[in-house]
Amino acid sequence: MAIETIKWINGAARIIDQTKLPNKFEHIYCRDVNRMWHAIKRLEVRGAPAIGVAAAFGVLLGIQKFKGNDKHKFLKLFHETCDYLATSRPTAVNLFNMLNEMRVVVASNPQAEVRLLQKLLHQRAMEIFKADQEVCRRMGAHGAILIKNGMQCLTVCNAGALATVDYGTALGVFYSAKKNSKKFKVYSCETRPLLQGARLTCWELMREKIDTTLICDNMAASLMAKGHVDIIFTGADRIASNGDTANKIGTYMLAVLAKYHGIPFYVVAPRSTFDLKIKSGKQIPIEERKADEVTHVAGKATAPKGIKVYNPAFDVTPAKLITGIVTEYGIIRPPYVKSIKSKIACP
Amino acid sequence: MAIETIKWINGAARIIDQTKLPNKFEHIYCRDVNRMWHAIKRLEVRGAPAIGVAAAFGVLLGIQKFKGNDKHKFLKLFHETCDYLATSRPTAVNLFNMLNEMRVVVASNPQAEVRLLQKLLHQRAMEIFKADQEVCRRMGAHGAILIKNGMQCLTVCNAGALATVDYGTALGVFYSAKKNSKKFKVYSCETRPLLQGARLTCWELMREKIDTTLICDNMAASLMAKGHVDIIFTGADRIASNGDTANKIGTYMLAVLAKYHGIPFYVVAPRSTFDLKIKSGKQIPIEERKADEVTHVAGKATAPKGIKVYNPAFDVTPAKLITGIVTEYGIIRPPYVKSIKSKIACP
Repeated sequence: MAIETIKWINGAARIIDQTKLPNKFEHIYCRDVNRMWHAIKRLEVRGAPAIGVAAAFGVLLGIQKFKGNDKHKFLKLFHETCDYLATSRPTAVNLFNMLNEMRVVVASNPQAEVRLLQKLLHQRAMEIFKADQEVCRRMGAHGAILIKNGMQCLTVCNAGALATVDYGTALGVFYSAKKNSKKFKVYSCETRPLLQGARLTCWELMREKIDTTLICDNMAASLMAKGHVDIIFTGADRIASNGDTANKIGTYMLAVLAKYHGIPFYVVAPRSTFDLKIKSGKQIPIEERKADEVTHVAGKATAPKGIKVYNPAFDVTPAKLITGIVTEYGIIRPPYVKSIKSKIACP
Repeated sequence: MAIETIKWINGAARIIDQTKLPNKFEHIYCRDVNRMWHAIKRLEVRGAPAIGVAAAFGVLLGIQKFKGNDKHKFLKLFHETCDYLATSRPTAVNLFNMLNEMRVVVASNPQAEVRLLQKLLHQRAMEIFKADQEVCRRMGAHGAILIKNGMQCLTVCNAGALATVDYGTALGVFYSAKKNSKKFKVYSCETRPLLQGARLTCWELMREKIDTTLICDNMAASLMAKGHVDIIFTGADRIASNGDTANKIGTYMLAVLAKYHGIPFYVVAPRSTFDLKIKSGKQIPIEERKADEVTHVAGKATAPKGIKVYNPAFDVTPAKLITGIVTEYGIIRPPYVKSIKSKIACP
C-alpha cells in the first residue's frame, strides 16, 4: 500500500489532506494539538481507526512541549488535552477508546515522573499506530474468505487505507482477496455529501488495480434489483454490545436494501470500534454537520440560498440486518450479544 | 405559480434553462427543431409532461418554415421531424405519446392541404399545452386528500411546475394541499447526479412558502427509521399496463425503504405517462447517461480521472411497492392491471 495516511515524524503528526484528494495529494504537518483537533473536525484525517491514531498522536502533540517536573501541572495538561480532543467528533468510538488507552498509561503508572510518563505515552501511541496495520491485515484475511471468484461487491464511504494507518477495514478485505488472486468487481457508492466513496475509495482501488465502478448512492437499489451485487462490505464508526452499528450515512439504507434483495451484508471493524459500555445503537450519538456540506459542492451553490438542510453524518444499522462482523479475531455472527461478549469483550 | 416552464411565443418555444437554476433564471428561445432536440437532451427542459409539450412544440418548429403546397414533401418533413425528436430521450413516454398525438392529426385528416395541416397541428400542440395545466390541477386535488395536517412528506427529483407546463404532478399535490390550508412538511431528496431535487424542487417549494428540508438521497432511510416520513409522492416517466413505474433513479430505492418502514408510497402522473402497449416495467428502456454527470460537479472533478461509472437516469419500481397512482381521474389502487384498464385505457 504505502499510502501512509498518518505517521509520526520528528515531533509532528504528518497526515494526508483527504479533503483535497483525488485532485491533489498533499501532506499536513500537525505540530500542536489544536491543529490536530481541526484536522479531525474538518475531515482532513477521517475514518474511525485513523481518528483513533490521530487522537493518540494528538495527545503527544499536547504534552510534548511540557518542561519541568511538576506532575500536577503535567496531569492537568494531559487530561485537558484528552478532553479537548474528545470534542472533535462524537460518533467514532475509536477516538474515545484510544484516548482511554492513553489515560490508562497514566493511571497504571502512579509513581512515574513526568519525563517517564512522556516516554511511556509516546511508546503507547506508537504501539497503537503499529497495531492498526496488523489488525487490518488480520481482518482482511478473515474477510477475503467471503469473496468468491466472479463476485460483484459493493461498498460505501471509504473504509480503506485512508481510513486507517495503512490498509483498511472493508477495503482491506478487497486488498487481501486481490493478493489471493481472486477475481471480483467492486461498486463504490459515491457517499454524499462529502463524496468519500468517489474521491477516496475509487482513488485507492484504482491505485491497487481493482476493477471498480462508481455509482451515486441512489443507484445501489437498482444495481441490486439487476443482480449486480453479490455481497456488501462496509466499515463502522461504533458497534454497540448488541451488534447495532453506526457507520457513514447511507449504510443503513444499504442494509435494508440488502435484506430486501437477499444479499449478505458484512461490517468490517476492529475491536477498537466496539463500544461495550452501550447496549444498543440508540445510545450512539450521531454527528450532525453543517448545511453547506449539502448545499455547496467545490464552493459552488447547488441549492437555493436559505434552504433548510438535515445533514447527519452517520446512521445506525440494527444488528438484525447484519450478516456478520469481520474482526481481527474472525467473523462474528448472530446472536451478537453472545458472540460479541465471547469474541470481543473477552477475546 | 406563473413559472411558465415552457411557452409558445411568436413562432418560438420559450423554455426556462433548468440547468442554470437555482443560481440563474434564464430563458432559452428554441427557434428550430434542432435547438429543441438539444434542449431535451441536455435537460434544459425536463420532466415527463414538460417533455411531452416540448415535443409537440418541436414538431411545430420543424414544420413552420415549410412553404408551398407539396403535401408529399410536407409529410416527409413532418414524419422526419417526429422521428428526430423521438431520439432525444428514451424513457419518458410522454415524448412518444405527444408525438403520436401530432401524427394522429395528420392521419385523421387525409384530405387536408398543407396549410390546413399546419394550422391543425398548431391547434393540437396548443391543446396539449393547455391540457397539461388542467390535468395537473386535477391530480393535485385528488392527491391533496391524502395529506393530513402535521404530515411529513418526502419527494424525489422534480415533479413540479418545472416538470410540467405550470403546476406539477407530485409537487402539484403539495400546492393543492397548501391552497387547502393544510399544514405539512416536505423533505426533498437532492437527487444525484444532477440534483434536480436540490436545485429545482427546493427552489419551487421555497417560492411557494412550503416548509421544505433538503436531504441527500442516502439520508432518506435514516429519516424513515426516525419516523420523520409519513407519506411519499413521486412523479413518473412511464407507467406500464401492470403499474410498474419508471421514474428518476433512486425512486425504486425509496419504494423499497417505504415498504420496509410501512410508509405509503404514491406515484402522481397523468394519463399521458401511461404506456398501455407494454405489459410490465421490463419493457421500459432506461436511459444511461454520460460518466461526467457523476464524476464532475459544476465543472470540477469529484472522482479520479478514468474511473468507470454506471449512470442510469431512471429505475423501475414494481407495482407491488406502489400504494396508489394519483391521476387526473382519481387515485388508482391495486390490482393495477384491472384498475389501469378501467380508469386509464377506457376512462
